[in-house]
Amino acid sequence: MRIVVDAMGSDNRPVPDVAGAVAAAREFSDTIILVGDPQKIEAELAHHDLEGLSIEAVPAAEEITMTDKPSVVARGKPNSSMHVGMKLIKDGEGDAFVTCGNTGAALAIATLQTLRRIPGVLRPALTTLLTIGEHRLILLDIGANADCKAEWLHQFAVMGSIYAERALGRPSPRVALLSNGEEEGKGNQLIKETAKLLAQSSLNYIGNVEPKEMLGGQADVVVTDGFVGNITIKSMEALGDTLFGLIRSELTGDLRSKVGALLAKPAFRRVYRQVDPFEVGGAPLLGVNGVVIVGHGRTNAVGVKNAIRQARQAVAGQIIEAIREGIAAYRFEQASAVEDNR
Amino acid sequence: MRIVVDAMGSDNRPVPDVAGAVAAAREFSDTIILVGDPQKIEAELAHHDLEGLSIEAVPAAEEITMTDKPSVVARGKPNSSMHVGMKLIKDGEGDAFVTCGNTGAALAIATLQTLRRIPGVLRPALTTLLTIGEHRLILLDIGANADCKAEWLHQFAVMGSIYAERALGRPSPRVALLSNGEEEGKGNQLIKETAKLLAQSSLNYIGNVEPKEMLGGQADVVVTDGFVGNITIKSMEALGDTLFGLIRSELTGDLRSKVGALLAKPAFRRVYRQVDPFEVGGAPLLGVNGVVIVGHGRTNAVGVKNAIRQARQAVAGQIIEAIREGIAAYRFEQASAVEDNR
Repeated sequence: MRIVVDAMGSDNRPVPDVAGAVAAAREFSDTIILVGDPQKIEAELAHHDLEGLSIEAVPAAEEITMTDKPSVVARGKPNSSMHVGMKLIKDGEGDAFVTCGNTGAALAIATLQTLRRIPGVLRPALTTLLTIGEHRLILLDIGANADCKAEWLHQFAVMGSIYAERALGRPSPRVALLSNGEEEGKGNQLIKETAKLLAQSSLNYIGNVEPKEMLGGQADVVVTDGFVGNITIKSMEALGDTLFGLIRSELTGDLRSKVGALLAKPAFRRVYRQVDPFEVGGAPLLGVNGVVIVGHGRTNAVGVKNAIRQARQAVAGQIIEAIREGIAAYRFEQASAVEDNR
Repeated sequence: MRIVVDAMGSDNRPVPDVAGAVAAAREFSDTIILVGDPQKIEAELAHHDLEGLSIEAVPAAEEITMTDKPSVVARGKPNSSMHVGMKLIKDGEGDAFVTCGNTGAALAIATLQTLRRIPGVLRPALTTLLTIGEHRLILLDIGANADCKAEWLHQFAVMGSIYAERALGRPSPRVALLSNGEEEGKGNQLIKETAKLLAQSSLNYIGNVEPKEMLGGQADVVVTDGFVGNITIKSMEALGDTLFGLIRSELTGDLRSKVGALLAKPAFRRVYRQVDPFEVGGAPLLGVNGVVIVGHGRTNAVGVKNAIRQARQAVAGQIIEAIREGIAAYRFEQASAVEDNR
């Protein structure tokens, strides 16, 4: 497998990006193609033992920053590492693209400039893989589309379900809608309309979930609009940061607590590992014509390596072909429904 | 002051409800009117020293449960403790009503059957008071209205701002919209439309906040629709429960961690107190014609006492009169704007 990795992606680029790429090349025996500033890549690679590894570098003259406006850079920085990397996979020179850079830019560049949408996909979606202990689920959309239509959410459910099956190894994934109550009929207009569509679909639709059930592992695919999904993720991140911040500050407030904290450190590390986003590494952009995995900007080498693992699993699961077929089947279902209603 | 307290509200009623009422009667020297099953109230009061306290009981024949459907019980249980309690304040026999029962039922009974809306209020809102350390803010709507219009959110901002000023003692409260980005222009259609209204209003509108800024204390009033608000609150609750659950389980996993946890216990208690919803006690229903404070169903005596404290502060701040004036001013502003546009 040949995985293209954005060397200029993460907040601390190229350090974790390159280190994670090297670790992945070693662990998975894949060819890794690093894209970015050749001098910076070379300088960083010099810190690693590359013996027996297959690592290449492809130059890209421009960098995208976290503050760049997605639609502006999509057109305005045509030689960015994201543009170059995605073109490589479009041209068949790589099987997947991994970046820990600006998510909105990745989506815009994929959709507008390079890979384009899979035929029939109404809107691509941003996703996140949530992990709580042993449980892993895909939540989408988390920010690509602030205002959605029921048909779009239906397609998100189709794509998410295929991803959960093919890349997460979950047979017949349980699909749910994120809502303000579990009971049928709960939700805003969008959720109620989408519920009707999903109930008639061939998906394993289980109804609504609230955030508690979502984190409790009751669904494999949770569908929402990009506005609600974004605020949901950010609410959980903000509360987690706040709690860990309070714990850190109180546990260093006096000697007794400090000793306790020292003893409990391994336990805390086990807690942290169970909710650590870097353990998952990254999540796919779904609906574009190629495997693109976006990791967290604040990632580390392990996070980048694990994002590359996500990419491998998506490629191995032939996710793009499956979504193409899934969306074609979706369109056929829709056309038949219209026909039936005549 | 005479505070009417629903004795049949909390999950463990009437124990914490009565205990909290007794504690409040002692601490605040108010008259407390307990509403509910007289036998149960008497039996519970017998456990307390009532010397010098002013506590009365008013019978109510029916109880509302957490699984009762709000609109059904609003009409179907006319002798519930919520109906009787709210009628008391409507008839001027009490200054405020406090319940730790079914929030939706409280809203429905207040709006449809007893207190009714303050004139000009388009939709009442459910609120929550978030507390993180020293910081306290009001978030609304958290569930009364799943699908909202910009005008409704504008009114939520007006009512929330008045509450923050009058009952939380915050001069010129900073009003923000909960959104998926802080920058102007971020948000879904509803947020973008509301932003325009708020920018033209006389409120101290500071723009959008994301969950991180909300918890960080950058706003005093955060406005959202009831669907997003409900999921935001539930996401934070779910993550908090998950994290504390993981910490508890890992800290009791081996002897070393257990000893550490024992030493760190006071520190943990300090953390917990800073995010404990019972420290706030309850939050107001805004837009109905009387002070109604709804506490958490899982509350304890301290939570009930603190909910009564919220009620006192709302009464002392003459919140109903202030909202009546605020909404009248809002309508005048709207009418003038229409006039100006002619």
